[in-house]
Amino acid sequence: MAIITLTTDFGEKDHFAGAVKGAIYSELTDVRIVDITHSISPFHITEAAYIIQNAYKNFPKGSIHIIGVDSELTPETNHIAVKLEDHYFVCANNGIISLITRDIVPQELVEITIHNHVISNFTVLDVFVQAACHIARGGTLAVIGKPISEVKPLTGIQPIVNKSQKQIIGNVIYVDNYGNVVSNITRKLFEEVGKGRPFKIEARRTQISKIHRSYSDAINFSLEKHKREEEGKKLAIFNSGDYIELAIYKSNPTTVGSASTLFGLDYRDAITINFED
Amino acid sequence: MAIITLTTDFGEKDHFAGAVKGAIYSELTDVRIVDITHSISPFHITEAAYIIQNAYKNFPKGSIHIIGVDSELTPETNHIAVKLEDHYFVCANNGIISLITRDIVPQELVEITIHNHVISNFTVLDVFVQAACHIARGGTLAVIGKPISEVKPLTGIQPIVNKSQKQIIGNVIYVDNYGNVVSNITRKLFEEVGKGRPFKIEARRTQISKIHRSYSDAINFSLEKHKREEEGKKLAIFNSGDYIELAIYKSNPTTVGSASTLFGLDYRDAITINFED
Amino acid sequence: MAIITLTTDFGEKDHFAGAVKGAIYSELTDVRIVDITHSISPFHITEAAYIIQNAYKNFPKGSIHIIGVDSELTPETNHIAVKLEDHYFVCANNGIISLITRDIVPQELVEITIHNHVISNFTVLDVFVQAACHIARGGTLAVIGKPISEVKPLTGIQPIVNKSQKQIIGNVIYVDNYGNVVSNITRKLFEEVGKGRPFKIEARRTQISKIHRSYSDAINFSLEKHKREEEGKKLAIFNSGDYIELAIYKSNPTTVGSASTLFGLDYRDAITINFED
Repeated sequence: MAIITLTTDFGEKDHFAGAVKGAIYSELTDVRIVDITHSISPFHITEAAYIIQNAYKNFPKGSIHIIGVDSELTPETNHIAVKLEDHYFVCANNGIISLITRDIVPQELVEITIHNHVISNFTVLDVFVQAACHIARGGTLAVIGKPISEVKPLTGIQPIVNKSQKQIIGNVIYVDNYGNVVSNITRKLFEEVGKGRPFKIEARRTQISKIHRSYSDAINFSLEKHKREEEGKKLAIFNSGDYIELAIYKSNPTTVGSASTLFGLDYRDAITINFED
Repeated sequence: MAIITLTTDFGEKDHFAGAVKGAIYSELTDVRIVDITHSISPFHITEAAYIIQNAYKNFPKGSIHIIGVDSELTPETNHIAVKLEDHYFVCANNGIISLITRDIVPQELVEITIHNHVISNFTVLDVFVQAACHIARGGTLAVIGKPISEVKPLTGIQPIVNKSQKQIIGNVIYVDNYGNVVSNITRKLFEEVGKGRPFKIEARRTQISKIHRSYSDAINFSLEKHKREEEGKKLAIFNSGDYIELAIYKSNPTTVGSASTLFGLDYRDAITINFED
Repeated sequence: MAIITLTTDFGEKDHFAGAVKGAIYSELTDVRIVDITHSISPFHITEAAYIIQNAYKNFPKGSIHIIGVDSELTPETNHIAVKLEDHYFVCANNGIISLITRDIVPQELVEITIHNHVISNFTVLDVFVQAACHIARGGTLAVIGKPISEVKPLTGIQPIVNKSQKQIIGNVIYVDNYGNVVSNITRKLFEEVGKGRPFKIEARRTQISKIHRSYSDAINFSLEKHKREEEGKKLAIFNSGDYIELAIYKSNPTTVGSASTLFGLDYRDAITINFED
């Protein structure tokens, strides 16, 4: 059974997501629709890229991923369908795909040309559903579009390594539901630059000199419970996407606070790693 | 496979939606349950009507739509099942259906009579699931209710056209996830009254004298990017439901602001269209 | 078709829920995944227990319930799979199951031992999905774990009955989407202690001396509409889970207020019932 996933900024309340699901079920009787999220911040394409990038690989090959963020057809933004690691993506050519394909070469890439010249104020419903259902029925990309060789480049915020290889200056790319702060510094970059040297992670007034293997690895369980600085302990880990993440152990953004609120870190803020000589 | 959709004010956290899905799957092994939304404002029947009205037509004919908003059985509000354009609706007779059927004559209309005289504090679970599953199994409305000829009238807020046909006074009926403000003035009414005359849309201190074909139609893409007043441009369009909508190009209610916050417009506020002679 | 439900604190936005669904569909082609909620407050295990407890019984027997709240493997918290009233639960041994099994003896109980000794920062994906899919394929608990005889005890906040049997001191265990306040006082306890005596429910400055059969039972429908103190009427009922709940008729926490905001009651606050002699 074909799988079509939805990643949008429609929100949880409006009729948009429901309408899209209804339209897909009207086209296909045998399909699974999976909500990845409808809570992307409006028009926030780097956020959408982060979410879909960390979700899609878990789906079976052949899955079709509709990304409904900033998707209007304009003189500057066309619509594309992309095959990538045997997954299909249907979205606007607004940079999202280039964020995903930074290290991955697309297998196929077409500009969608099935628009019926009707102006649409609901692109996902009027264009993306049709494209996704075509692919779900086993159709080729060539039928719904014309091959192109490049997507709109958008590299996002990339970490900078200084000349002496003593410093990585990264940035916050995402704050998650627990208020944990995800940087754009990957384990790979950290290890390549750091080469095992001691280091200090600095972000505003927060300093951390160890990267734990897991959240609870930061806690000393040999101490009695009341002697531990358990709740509220600050720590760094490589998260499940292998990015350096600053966290507070068992945080809650709306009550005890979180890495984001307690460290004063938000989207795009700097996170720096200084390595010793 | 039968489709049952859910439109409720249960919220995203409580067990209500989960319990209802579990109960449906306990009754039927072969059914699709589709969440339209569980984020209707509590007891807000015009909001629920707006959402379901704009969503249901996209589903295949024969779909069954449970509306779980203000659904308690009282001496004044009975439960109904309605067939309408080959879709089925199961809900309380609280006005929602009359908002949907303003221009559509129901094919069938029954008062649900399957209550087992047990007082229920969870109507959707105890009554609507049973009714919806009966319909999903191919059962007739006659088995679960007795025919009635009228639903509780509720016209909602209707736009007013002044005597001289120079003015339409409408109202905000919905604010969407982007903070865009939807009026109750349809394209049809606008064209019938306006007859192509120049016009000015006025809402508090905001004035707009053009209705764009799409959001991006308001942007002059021939200008270089930094010379455009792109983000933050105010505009009016006919939205995907063919209502006049006031919008801010690429708005975000929680950051840069939106039509609702920047124009100071909320549910029920007036939006007036003045036509020239 | 196997049913796997998800109850987590992942939130509505992050990629976690999408990744988990993708992983399940990669393992099983024939499965229903049902979101119960992803909006549990971070690490709030009593809240998670309340939600899953009120939802699971509505699902068909044999359903598998993944609880992804506070699920990291630590020296103090192992992972368990539990069979209970012919339902399966996969979760951390952090007290959630003991809250659910207070009055129910588990049929089977194992400590999950399928960890591949890789440290995981995404337990639900790396461990719970595998365990749940094993059960969904008809596998036995013995294959994925070793039998244990006890779960970590956590009784939660229990109501206290005073010596003279004249008073029950309970607490708020949940505030629902309507702002209604759910106490931990069950109908059973109330009837056993009260034995039909007149009573007064007291919570801060709110006093209620009747428990209505339903929300609308509190309203006098024989009065004309404008003479009723309908909206805003305070009342107590036994809710659908048979707990005493304090409510405001047709409340809306963000507009007119709710039992929680108007009575000033939140999680853990005291609700006392005083019986007359």
